[in-house]
Amino acid sequence: MSVADSLTQKAAALGKLAVRMCTDAGSGHPSSALSLAHLTTEILYRRMRHDPANPWHRGADRLVLSEGHAVPIVYAAWADMGGMVGKSPTSKHALRPAEVAGLRDLKTELDGHPNPAEGFPFFDAATGSLGMGLSVAAGLALGARLDNSQRRVFCIIGDGESREGQIWEAADFIADHKLTGVCTIFNCNGQGQAGFVSEQQSAERLADKMRAFGWEAVIIDGHDPAAISAALDKFGRTTAPLAIVAKTLKGWGVDALLKGNWHGKPLPAGELAAADASLDRAAGTTTNPSFPAPPAPAGVSISHPDPREVAWPSFADAMSAGGLGGALQKNALATRRAYGAALRAAGEILPQVVVLDADVSNSTFSEMFRENPKTRERFFECKIAEQNMISVAAGLSAAGYIPFANSFSKFLSRGYDQVELASISRANIKLVGSHSGISLAADGPSQMSLNDVAFFRAFTTARGDDRSTPLCHIYQPADAVSAYQLTQLMVKQRGMAYMRTFRPDVPLLYAHDQKFEPRGFHTLMTGSDLALVACGYMVHVAKQAAALLEKQNRRVTLIDAYCLPLDDERLYDALRKAGGRALVVEDNYGAGLGDAVAAIAARRGGLRVEQRTVSRIPKSARSAEEILDYCGVGPQQIADHALAVLASA
Amino acid sequence: MSVADSLTQKAAALGKLAVRMCTDAGSGHPSSALSLAHLTTEILYRRMRHDPANPWHRGADRLVLSEGHAVPIVYAAWADMGGMVGKSPTSKHALRPAEVAGLRDLKTELDGHPNPAEGFPFFDAATGSLGMGLSVAAGLALGARLDNSQRRVFCIIGDGESREGQIWEAADFIADHKLTGVCTIFNCNGQGQAGFVSEQQSAERLADKMRAFGWEAVIIDGHDPAAISAALDKFGRTTAPLAIVAKTLKGWGVDALLKGNWHGKPLPAGELAAADASLDRAAGTTTNPSFPAPPAPAGVSISHPDPREVAWPSFADAMSAGGLGGALQKNALATRRAYGAALRAAGEILPQVVVLDADVSNSTFSEMFRENPKTRERFFECKIAEQNMISVAAGLSAAGYIPFANSFSKFLSRGYDQVELASISRANIKLVGSHSGISLAADGPSQMSLNDVAFFRAFTTARGDDRSTPLCHIYQPADAVSAYQLTQLMVKQRGMAYMRTFRPDVPLLYAHDQKFEPRGFHTLMTGSDLALVACGYMVHVAKQAAALLEKQNRRVTLIDAYCLPLDDERLYDALRKAGGRALVVEDNYGAGLGDAVAAIAARRGGLRVEQRTVSRIPKSARSAEEILDYCGVGPQQIADHALAVLASA
Repeated sequence: MSVADSLTQKAAALGKLAVRMCTDAGSGHPSSALSLAHLTTEILYRRMRHDPANPWHRGADRLVLSEGHAVPIVYAAWADMGGMVGKSPTSKHALRPAEVAGLRDLKTELDGHPNPAEGFPFFDAATGSLGMGLSVAAGLALGARLDNSQRRVFCIIGDGESREGQIWEAADFIADHKLTGVCTIFNCNGQGQAGFVSEQQSAERLADKMRAFGWEAVIIDGHDPAAISAALDKFGRTTAPLAIVAKTLKGWGVDALLKGNWHGKPLPAGELAAADASLDRAAGTTTNPSFPAPPAPAGVSISHPDPREVAWPSFADAMSAGGLGGALQKNALATRRAYGAALRAAGEILPQVVVLDADVSNSTFSEMFRENPKTRERFFECKIAEQNMISVAAGLSAAGYIPFANSFSKFLSRGYDQVELASISRANIKLVGSHSGISLAADGPSQMSLNDVAFFRAFTTARGDDRSTPLCHIYQPADAVSAYQLTQLMVKQRGMAYMRTFRPDVPLLYAHDQKFEPRGFHTLMTGSDLALVACGYMVHVAKQAAALLEKQNRRVTLIDAYCLPLDDERLYDALRKAGGRALVVEDNYGAGLGDAVAAIAARRGGLRVEQRTVSRIPKSARSAEEILDYCGVGPQQIADHALAVLASA
Repeated sequence: MSVADSLTQKAAALGKLAVRMCTDAGSGHPSSALSLAHLTTEILYRRMRHDPANPWHRGADRLVLSEGHAVPIVYAAWADMGGMVGKSPTSKHALRPAEVAGLRDLKTELDGHPNPAEGFPFFDAATGSLGMGLSVAAGLALGARLDNSQRRVFCIIGDGESREGQIWEAADFIADHKLTGVCTIFNCNGQGQAGFVSEQQSAERLADKMRAFGWEAVIIDGHDPAAISAALDKFGRTTAPLAIVAKTLKGWGVDALLKGNWHGKPLPAGELAAADASLDRAAGTTTNPSFPAPPAPAGVSISHPDPREVAWPSFADAMSAGGLGGALQKNALATRRAYGAALRAAGEILPQVVVLDADVSNSTFSEMFRENPKTRERFFECKIAEQNMISVAAGLSAAGYIPFANSFSKFLSRGYDQVELASISRANIKLVGSHSGISLAADGPSQMSLNDVAFFRAFTTARGDDRSTPLCHIYQPADAVSAYQLTQLMVKQRGMAYMRTFRPDVPLLYAHDQKFEPRGFHTLMTGSDLALVACGYMVHVAKQAAALLEKQNRRVTLIDAYCLPLDDERLYDALRKAGGRALVVEDNYGAGLGDAVAAIAARRGGLRVEQRTVSRIPKSARSAEEILDYCGVGPQQIADHALAVLASA
């Protein structure tokens, strides 16, 4: 039997399984799965160097299925290979063909879209929100390069999803970084969900686009084994990155699914026999040929130090090493600068710390990492393309690295969909936004982050797989010491974290060796009239308000709530001690810190909480003071609000 | 004097003004502004058909400066022309050259980036977060087409920002819709913020990319008046959309700014004289030539009915017209379907209602608008590119239309940065997300919206220019009647609104003529033990919980909080009547409705509020019931929580 015949026979056998599992699940995408039957078979059985018995093998080639809804064909192959599933090597078991009937069942590892965290470690990242896979593949390839590993990354992209701009950000990034270890396959089945794909996403147009982006592109028949094999033979032999544009049939091999535009609907159970027969005809046989094991993965040995164990330089030493000794002496140091020095220190002591920036490294101060000869090679310039940056970070995390992705806080919102997918992947990514809030003033609202705390705070209300750690920590340092210590926390803690630094220089609030903790806060002043609760730049504004109140003989407690989520019990006690009344002030719109405090008060009772947040759309102003006042969060407004609260008491 | 010479002289004169205003402001981007000196002069003085005395003229050509930080050169031209500024025609005044010293001042209309709402109506939309302008231009061009107006749109894009994937989404969209009324100019000055732009963004590469996207592209010297003129002569004469790729100098004409990579820094005051002299040399004169008025705008007469005045069909008639009569009789109708019927009705009675979708119109049910011959022409398929869709909607809003942009709630998060910029533009856009929350179950977390309520809620805490209307309303209909009535509210109210529809069919909760109001809520059951507060799908889950509690002889009040923000006073009173204890339940992560209620309680006192939100990352499940239970928000869990609260009372 020819190789080509056997490939088609295997493709048909997997196709039957894929169609059946969708019918069993009562939902799913059999037609998209079938369009990938030949490509999946060739890649998983003959091209990828991997060990189905050990999908955790760090030397194994990777597959990113960007077109996540086509996953049934991969589940079918994995079951046919007896590949291992499970949330860890200690809880693994071989997937049996009968088990794929559990597709999309709460109790199985077979989620509706690739979801490694639920027990399918063959995949590295959750996909399903479209257009992200190529960026994840780029991150995995960067990780392989850093590992000096020969492992390669295959990435399958749908034609419809290639409309997503992120694909083109990734195409630029892969070209810039010469990541020829990524083999990109476009699956052109010509159909989207609501209709046929645009001519702009035709195979010919896609190939032209890839070439214009500096790639090598070949167009093939995605159901012709010989053509697939010849195209994949090019992988690793081209100087430019390789794109294989495959023309396929949505519903290949099943007459019922080839009619019209069949998307996202399983076949009725009554039509399964006809579908099997149809696939048998396509294969010319009813048998499922047995294939040899795929090529074995290359060995690889990487051992990174435990980030919780390493010793950090003193604050003063780290600042001096970052060239901030003078600023420290002047006692005027922006949190973004101190963060840059912290990042530089982290890079020197931990080889797994990597840094990405989106053309603003001289604003975020990630340039301190870029310019350090000891860490320079682990800095990746992503240019002005934040979506790609965040998904690349997710890929680097899956490869075992600790990526810090940097931009203005405002511009990180460009990648919130990618942040959500990274969360589903349980990615260990650190997002750091500079110029947060409104204190940057002059540039105006298009550069100000106003919804960011609300967005990330939603994550802090849910728990990770251990049922105790929040899905994300938000850190808002108020001074350089905080920024240095909180950066250390971000490195030590596994999981997503978001740090908000700001533009203006501010004096130190803390001793150099002050400790900071997850869910922690610090009390900077104590008074029994009322508590002012703030974080980040607003701590300094609240301090001015406290001084104004002192002139009125009002003594307030000032709390720096540098972390979300908060330690409910400790904060409750602190606020009770402060007179049971709190005024929370923020330099963003609401649904942030103020609500976090209000939620505690509303649950426990015995506390009254008022909030002042940015009350209107900001505009440009010459100074932070002006814009804070314009937005209703200036020192005098805070003091007046506090006095009104006290008067009503 | 030759036309070319006079253009360079005018460019130099404007350049002087642009450099000086940045120095006066103490910040800004003089070098980027100078790279556009010739192009801006040719476009504003000689190409655009507009009336500087009336920037509100609806027949006038438009300019979208996607590269917003280069705005000083436009301010310089506007001041030189004596163009009108002001927040409305009744408060307008001519901008004088001396006034540009007020750049970035709190009291002026000259924001750091284009910001029409602060009094610069020459622009249509806020820019500054990069890569969005071409999509806005596409929306403006669609508006012109709908108006049967001959007005055209010029769009200037930076080379660095062309890395943003959204540019390529817009390129596809403009090609799909043959929007040859957009003239796209790439400003290739070769420099970004932190460094030089990638070869991937070189003029040659950009031209190749545009051609591969089906455009016509020409490369010119952006400081050669003859070349600029010849290229702009092509505009309107090409069958494919036209891209002019201009090679420019960042800092043109000013020796000090041409050295190295000078970005975003003004010149010291002491260097202004030298800068002026340098520009005089470049122009060969010190004089600012006077130019004739630009070509006049074409007349245009559009009058749309007032959306607050039109009469809507009855609920039953609207559902029947949408083909939902049968579902209504079965009393099982998903909110997304009822919304589709509402959209269909809105389109029939209001010619300014337009609809966009991202290839999921058969899931969002915007297909009811697409398939209606009376409204079909106002449906714009954006394919799988949500960022572009949202910015196109912002452009359509600026053109006087009421755009509804549709996708899964989850996928709208792809465009949150664009939503934030639309808010700064005070855009009248309506965002509708289907499959919200977790009730879609089987597809898994990559398709579930979990942070969306928190993100949009941040907007609801700030106020618009009237200091009373929230920046956004969030509507969460629990049944078909709600979906129909709330869609009407979205149409009637100016400003941003976000509606969350869901997948499952549910019974009606309301009489067909039930009224709904901004900040409103409805009480579905009354009991004095405790209040259950929910919205959307969770109202039905809370109802089941209430039934379980009734079995325990506990009578609860059930509140459908269909709008955010809430009417604080009314809700406070309702909760007090219900026993002063509330349990809020949501099918998303926290920082949403529960915190909105908690914030009221914490401010007022006398109320205790508990919350149940999605407590962990969801996965696929076969039914809504299963996944709700898995995430901690099933009926029994809600009932148990309520009993625990009551036991502790």
